[in-house]
Amino acid sequence: MLLLSKADIKKVFTMKDAVEADKEAFRLVVEGKCDAPIRTNIQAPKHEGSFLFMPAYVEEMDTASLKVVDIFPHNIDQGLPTSPAQVFLIDGKNGIVKAVLDGTYVTQIRTGAATGAAFDLLAKKDCRIGALIGTGGQAAAQLEAMLTVRKLEEVRVFDMNPERAQAFAATMQEELEEYGAKIVAAVSSDEAVEGADLLVTVTPSSRPVFDASKVKEGATVSCVGAYQPHMQEMDPAILTRASKIYFDSEEAVLSESGDILIPLADGTITKEDFTGDLGQLIKGQIPGRESDEEIIVFETVGVAAQDLMAAKAIYDRAVEAGIGMNWE
Amino acid sequence: MLLLSKADIKKVFTMKDAVEADKEAFRLVVEGKCDAPIRTNIQAPKHEGSFLFMPAYVEEMDTASLKVVDIFPHNIDQGLPTSPAQVFLIDGKNGIVKAVLDGTYVTQIRTGAATGAAFDLLAKKDCRIGALIGTGGQAAAQLEAMLTVRKLEEVRVFDMNPERAQAFAATMQEELEEYGAKIVAAVSSDEAVEGADLLVTVTPSSRPVFDASKVKEGATVSCVGAYQPHMQEMDPAILTRASKIYFDSEEAVLSESGDILIPLADGTITKEDFTGDLGQLIKGQIPGRESDEEIIVFETVGVAAQDLMAAKAIYDRAVEAGIGMNWE
Repeated sequence: MLLLSKADIKKVFTMKDAVEADKEAFRLVVEGKCDAPIRTNIQAPKHEGSFLFMPAYVEEMDTASLKVVDIFPHNIDQGLPTSPAQVFLIDGKNGIVKAVLDGTYVTQIRTGAATGAAFDLLAKKDCRIGALIGTGGQAAAQLEAMLTVRKLEEVRVFDMNPERAQAFAATMQEELEEYGAKIVAAVSSDEAVEGADLLVTVTPSSRPVFDASKVKEGATVSCVGAYQPHMQEMDPAILTRASKIYFDSEEAVLSESGDILIPLADGTITKEDFTGDLGQLIKGQIPGRESDEEIIVFETVGVAAQDLMAAKAIYDRAVEAGIGMNWE
Repeated sequence: MLLLSKADIKKVFTMKDAVEADKEAFRLVVEGKCDAPIRTNIQAPKHEGSFLFMPAYVEEMDTASLKVVDIFPHNIDQGLPTSPAQVFLIDGKNGIVKAVLDGTYVTQIRTGAATGAAFDLLAKKDCRIGALIGTGGQAAAQLEAMLTVRKLEEVRVFDMNPERAQAFAATMQEELEEYGAKIVAAVSSDEAVEGADLLVTVTPSSRPVFDASKVKEGATVSCVGAYQPHMQEMDPAILTRASKIYFDSEEAVLSESGDILIPLADGTITKEDFTGDLGQLIKGQIPGRESDEEIIVFETVGVAAQDLMAAKAIYDRAVEAGIGMNWE
């Protein structure tokens, strides 16, 4: 069995690779080629946590996977990750577990890559300014994803906690130096959003974290954080301004995301307003951006196919490069 | 994260320990203290395999677990295990995966220990002869379990393939020498069963593998192999001869085991004939053996609580003994 840590994964798998893996995953989903039963959820009310088990199988790749991702918000008080995870990669020919991968990092990079795939396919060619709202565990990969698919001059980072925003911006300025963008902390959501070509929200908020009227024409918006029906970080007014609305998986989004469920329920939008899944765009079944003035919205909650495709790509590269630790 | 191989586990966890862990598991099940959602099953028809994902959580122990166990019968042709498995042990306080354990071995020992627990609680005090039918991947642990809970002079092993039975008996005679029993290959099922005080069947058979009329008075029978509705290794006539019928979990058995479902469907038995779950006996809610003449039947299909309790006990001992490999 091959053990692949975050450091190992970083050696063989870039954000660009992750974006391509996610595109493949989204294509497999719309083709019905990924068998991913609904994830099992066990609640741990004593610690206000939950255990999630996400299996997936792609027959044509002879590969299965299982991600354990547990959500324990209070971990932050002990300096522990709030969504610790591990991934088993399974040989689909014989059922043998081939690898264990640091699932916390796989989750970060594949979730960032969903935004990356959406921006790569949907954003204007010419983007200069990015905005990022939220600086939690998933934020760094979201930031790297936007920098990977568009050459940005500046990304403005906003968090309700200004010190956290500043610390995050400073750390990221260093870590993502190679991309040549200025990473700055914004003092308000408006300051971050106004003039931004790309906007990412990645918060667990139950109230909109930006003002849709401040979003400029031609912007592309990716909302990542609302994975439960009561969560709503997206200002629903952006949905009525948007020319097109895409999902990683409409089925998954409609089963859990308040960003879409709440405005659907109150009549702000109807299903007629949905453009479709990113996989349909990748397959050429639905249109993409049609002008530089369109506002485009992408909502992602994550699908198990992303974990499988990322884990498989990482494993294949690690084996080729002789990276990772062999056990047993 | 602690990595625990079969060799590591053997150093800190005996069959006797496993029997005690299983008893705890069976008790937790009847107390409703183990949250174990129905296992997720993904079929891989291309390779006639299936992937099974078995999660469990016991709040009072702040522990969760996930076993991946995949069933690929054709693996035997490549000399690979037919039920390869791995177990994640999860800290219930923060959701962090604490350990990966060789799940193939955990499955063997906890499945053997179910028979061990049943025989420990239900067999006559004085047993001399054991019989084991089936010599596949689960057989060695079943054999060790009977030797652990009763001092036997002889165990007779039968398999449809006589060479396999002989090879198995020879290997086990050496591996289990410490128990001081003679392990011999029987030329027929009847030869194995006649005069046996303890009988274990552990085959994937769809037809009964012994003749109930050959089972002697006072015998205790454990049937382990029938984990699907079409599987039936137990001669149903033993159920009408039996004074008592126990399960690891009646709910689990009635959801999958042909050993019980088939005779229920054809009227050989009714639910009135069931005595109850082993956990109820452990808690003193139902009687155990009441004379040395009673024939007693135990049917087990396995429950996720056994994996959790075994993994937790192994982990705790390994940490104390400084056994295993630390990763990350």
